[in-house]
Amino acid sequence: MRKAATYAIGVDYGTNSCRALLVDTRDGAELASHVFHYPTGEDGIILDPRDPNLARQHPSDYVEGFLATVRGTVQKARKLKGFSPDRIVGIGIDTTGSTPMPVDEHGLPLAFSKRFARHPAAMAWLWKDHTGHAEAAAITAQARRSGVPYLAKCGGVYSSEWFWSKIWHCQKTAPEVFKAAYSWVEACDFVPAFVTGKLDPRTMARSVCAAGHKAMYAAAWGGLPSAKFLKSLSPGLAELRARLYETAVPSDQVAGFLTADIARQVGLPADIPVAVGAFDAHHGAVGAGIRPGTLVKIIGTSTCDMLVAPAHATVPDIPGVCGIVPGSIVPEMIGLEAGQSAVGDIFLWFAKHLCPAEFAQGNAIANLERAAAHLAPGASGLLALDWNNGNRTVLVDPLLSGLLVGQSLHTTAPEVFRAIVEATAFGALTIIRRFEEYSVKVREVVNCGGIAEKSSFLMQIYADVCNRPMKLSRSAQTCALGAAIFGAVAGGAHRSTAAAQRAMTGVKPLVYRPRREHVKAYAELYELYLALHDAFGKTGKHPALDDVMKRLASIRARVRKQGC
Amino acid sequence: MRKAATYAIGVDYGTNSCRALLVDTRDGAELASHVFHYPTGEDGIILDPRDPNLARQHPSDYVEGFLATVRGTVQKARKLKGFSPDRIVGIGIDTTGSTPMPVDEHGLPLAFSKRFARHPAAMAWLWKDHTGHAEAAAITAQARRSGVPYLAKCGGVYSSEWFWSKIWHCQKTAPEVFKAAYSWVEACDFVPAFVTGKLDPRTMARSVCAAGHKAMYAAAWGGLPSAKFLKSLSPGLAELRARLYETAVPSDQVAGFLTADIARQVGLPADIPVAVGAFDAHHGAVGAGIRPGTLVKIIGTSTCDMLVAPAHATVPDIPGVCGIVPGSIVPEMIGLEAGQSAVGDIFLWFAKHLCPAEFAQGNAIANLERAAAHLAPGASGLLALDWNNGNRTVLVDPLLSGLLVGQSLHTTAPEVFRAIVEATAFGALTIIRRFEEYSVKVREVVNCGGIAEKSSFLMQIYADVCNRPMKLSRSAQTCALGAAIFGAVAGGAHRSTAAAQRAMTGVKPLVYRPRREHVKAYAELYELYLALHDAFGKTGKHPALDDVMKRLASIRARVRKQGC
Repeated sequence: MRKAATYAIGVDYGTNSCRALLVDTRDGAELASHVFHYPTGEDGIILDPRDPNLARQHPSDYVEGFLATVRGTVQKARKLKGFSPDRIVGIGIDTTGSTPMPVDEHGLPLAFSKRFARHPAAMAWLWKDHTGHAEAAAITAQARRSGVPYLAKCGGVYSSEWFWSKIWHCQKTAPEVFKAAYSWVEACDFVPAFVTGKLDPRTMARSVCAAGHKAMYAAAWGGLPSAKFLKSLSPGLAELRARLYETAVPSDQVAGFLTADIARQVGLPADIPVAVGAFDAHHGAVGAGIRPGTLVKIIGTSTCDMLVAPAHATVPDIPGVCGIVPGSIVPEMIGLEAGQSAVGDIFLWFAKHLCPAEFAQGNAIANLERAAAHLAPGASGLLALDWNNGNRTVLVDPLLSGLLVGQSLHTTAPEVFRAIVEATAFGALTIIRRFEEYSVKVREVVNCGGIAEKSSFLMQIYADVCNRPMKLSRSAQTCALGAAIFGAVAGGAHRSTAAAQRAMTGVKPLVYRPRREHVKAYAELYELYLALHDAFGKTGKHPALDDVMKRLASIRARVRKQGC
Repeated sequence: MRKAATYAIGVDYGTNSCRALLVDTRDGAELASHVFHYPTGEDGIILDPRDPNLARQHPSDYVEGFLATVRGTVQKARKLKGFSPDRIVGIGIDTTGSTPMPVDEHGLPLAFSKRFARHPAAMAWLWKDHTGHAEAAAITAQARRSGVPYLAKCGGVYSSEWFWSKIWHCQKTAPEVFKAAYSWVEACDFVPAFVTGKLDPRTMARSVCAAGHKAMYAAAWGGLPSAKFLKSLSPGLAELRARLYETAVPSDQVAGFLTADIARQVGLPADIPVAVGAFDAHHGAVGAGIRPGTLVKIIGTSTCDMLVAPAHATVPDIPGVCGIVPGSIVPEMIGLEAGQSAVGDIFLWFAKHLCPAEFAQGNAIANLERAAAHLAPGASGLLALDWNNGNRTVLVDPLLSGLLVGQSLHTTAPEVFRAIVEATAFGALTIIRRFEEYSVKVREVVNCGGIAEKSSFLMQIYADVCNRPMKLSRSAQTCALGAAIFGAVAGGAHRSTAAAQRAMTGVKPLVYRPRREHVKAYAELYELYLALHDAFGKTGKHPALDDVMKRLASIRARVRKQGC
């Protein structure tokens, strides 16, 4: 007889909205979900027309989002046969990151106070806020001088998107906020703490995922960077260190239990365990079934490329890979994170700015894909670099930019579009190669995220360029599913995250398989991509480019003649 | 008292239409003109849907065009006070080229015969017919082996657009036409011969402009290439040599006198002298007032860049300059010809294929220009190479292609458009620099052609990039004016071409002057253009490109901050 059903809820906070998902802990079946769009700002983001780098969110949207999505999900689930709220064993939560916010000594966001309710510096500094770019550069420089390998686990360069860049920038530009802040917490720590009433910043559970990937936290040097190092940046940061945390924990740990007040508001019993939070992509990797050898690619506006290695494995520092953190994805394993700064964002840019009227009616990207799908690899003579938003992996350089070569007087918009998609595929391959060069084997690729779901055109190109089958995560909501898995683990429904994954995740029957003729053509084009990559992206490298245009022309002539 | 008026007619054959222009020989005043669109084929061109390289014209269109335009012009002129047809002293003619056609032993085009009336190989092989590209490559290779510097005066590479490539391709692919041809004549030789009845190919006047720039004719090696050399290509070509010509002459010579029959049809007296023909760009340079030190740029779909040096000057062979021919422009001087394979054509391509709906209403190029005119140099962070149709000068490589670098997620269509226009300006500067490196000084730049007339946006960028004032030819029909000047010289109205130019040509009062701040910004961008130019265009050159994207980003940041 089949075991009686228990359920877990995952709450996934994205950039513009959040969603809750109710799943069966036995098999991951998705039973009900509810979405909430953040009401504050433009599409949930507070912007500053004078500063395109600024992007903030109001933490009240996070609280409201939890209440609305969990309540909505539970309401829908009540209509299901056999469901009862008291069979929910746990809740897991993920958010974007690094998205830190200043809090008072009770752990309440300063944005909740009357004084700072409308002050952008008192809100959550959204992951894509780049106001701290000068501070990021200074942190990188100082870390390199420090004699401690603070950057070894994050690819060698500290980012303007990360924790310390933002806090330091707050200190410089909004000192009244910095002074009023007792501590700073990541959104993925704030939400579990808030709904469990465990807000005290001195004892609040802190995510090792956020700490390790964004705050230079590592056991090797005793947690956060030393007070001495932080003092070399700014004395205020050194003082803050004592009011942050000494230990950070993975998501199979319990952050606390749902308070009676919150439970009542969402229609659940009190005291349901809530797991320690983490970042959306990391929970997404868990929801996609990540395990050693399985690369999970979350393909959306940008990509996250996630791998895990067994805890006992020796993972070398990998230049250009932006995070190597024990416990950050699957708690018992070492998490590795890479990614491309822009994928879907480049397609959106092209569709918005360079798509002729002929293809702009309705869904421009779908129209371009349809036209581009008929083209053979190499037939356009075009080659692009996918760096319109810089390069996160493996070059770690936000100042790099896009490139297109091979245009004739007959080049069409679908040809350029296809070249851009191919460029992102070459970027994806470059990440895989970098992992394998450092002995982290990629035996399987599982894709998820909006674009992987929607674009068979893109997935087929990825299969051909990478010369590997491209699988799809079974769930269309892998981040929320990953969060629910941690809810299930926190609630004791499975004895480990890996066991929960085996039961609750899977891939779709549809697999994109490499086509031999295309693999060959793309291997030739990838050589030229690499020449451009190294010439424009690597300091001190001057590879020969004098034959690039001629080889593109000769490939084009051959393909147009032979059809492939 | 002012000298009594005499008149000259210039007939200018373009790619899609021809025009006649009646001018006052005293001052170049333009009194009447008439345009004729070729009736055969698509917009006057016979195409082959199976072969995009093929482009032919029917020579009957040339005859009809002469009759229609001259008749129309004379009819209009009759309404002018003081005009009388018997005050027309001469007619000059220019055509596109190299546009050769096979003729019988009487000099009549084979396309006029019943047998070949519809045979494309028997028609005029239009300048932009590239069917002979394989033959061109073979000629280049053979010339380099020959020990004779046949290519020294045409930039080192023989083109598929030129005389021998086309004839040889005809021999290979339409041997029945090749066999039936007694001789081959350029369009610019055919029209004067036809209207003067001097069609005998053995004695017909042949243009030194066509011969020197396209047929490897030079006094230094005794006229056309030797029979031995031609035999090394094909015995048929060596036999043909004896039925071509030994001497070619400049356009201040008289080709013949209008026949009574033609004169009657156009409403003119018989026996008006007709000057030896030449190519449109060369006559255009004369109509723009070319003289030593004056670079004339004819800016249209592509550009021609023309200079002259005194006959006694020692002009070295200039690598990458496609023609150095005594008498080809101004008869008493050495003509030098360079050019860009595509300028307006790149703008048309962008407007057709990559212009979003927002800018596509009405005149897309005008809309893009209007939006791009507000941008400061460097503000977009973009840089382009203008090689969408290969590079004619100075790299002489038809296999090169376009390039765009610096795209972000915010790059707009007007920004890309401006980068493309700037790229053509950098290409223009590269030509000027090449001339000056070889001691051919450029003291003044006079622009003409459709784009120079229409686009103050482009002209100002050219002034800023080249750091030279950009003048405009006074006439909007400089090619036809140049032809009329040769009509005037042939008719004795002036004692030399230079004297006729002094009387009949001029520049407009409007001069585009370089703006200091823009000159500085462009000098910085040109350094980066040169790095790309050499890296992608020069065999064996590997200049550093690793800072190109970063320098573009830093220029962009500076310009956006400082406004320049």
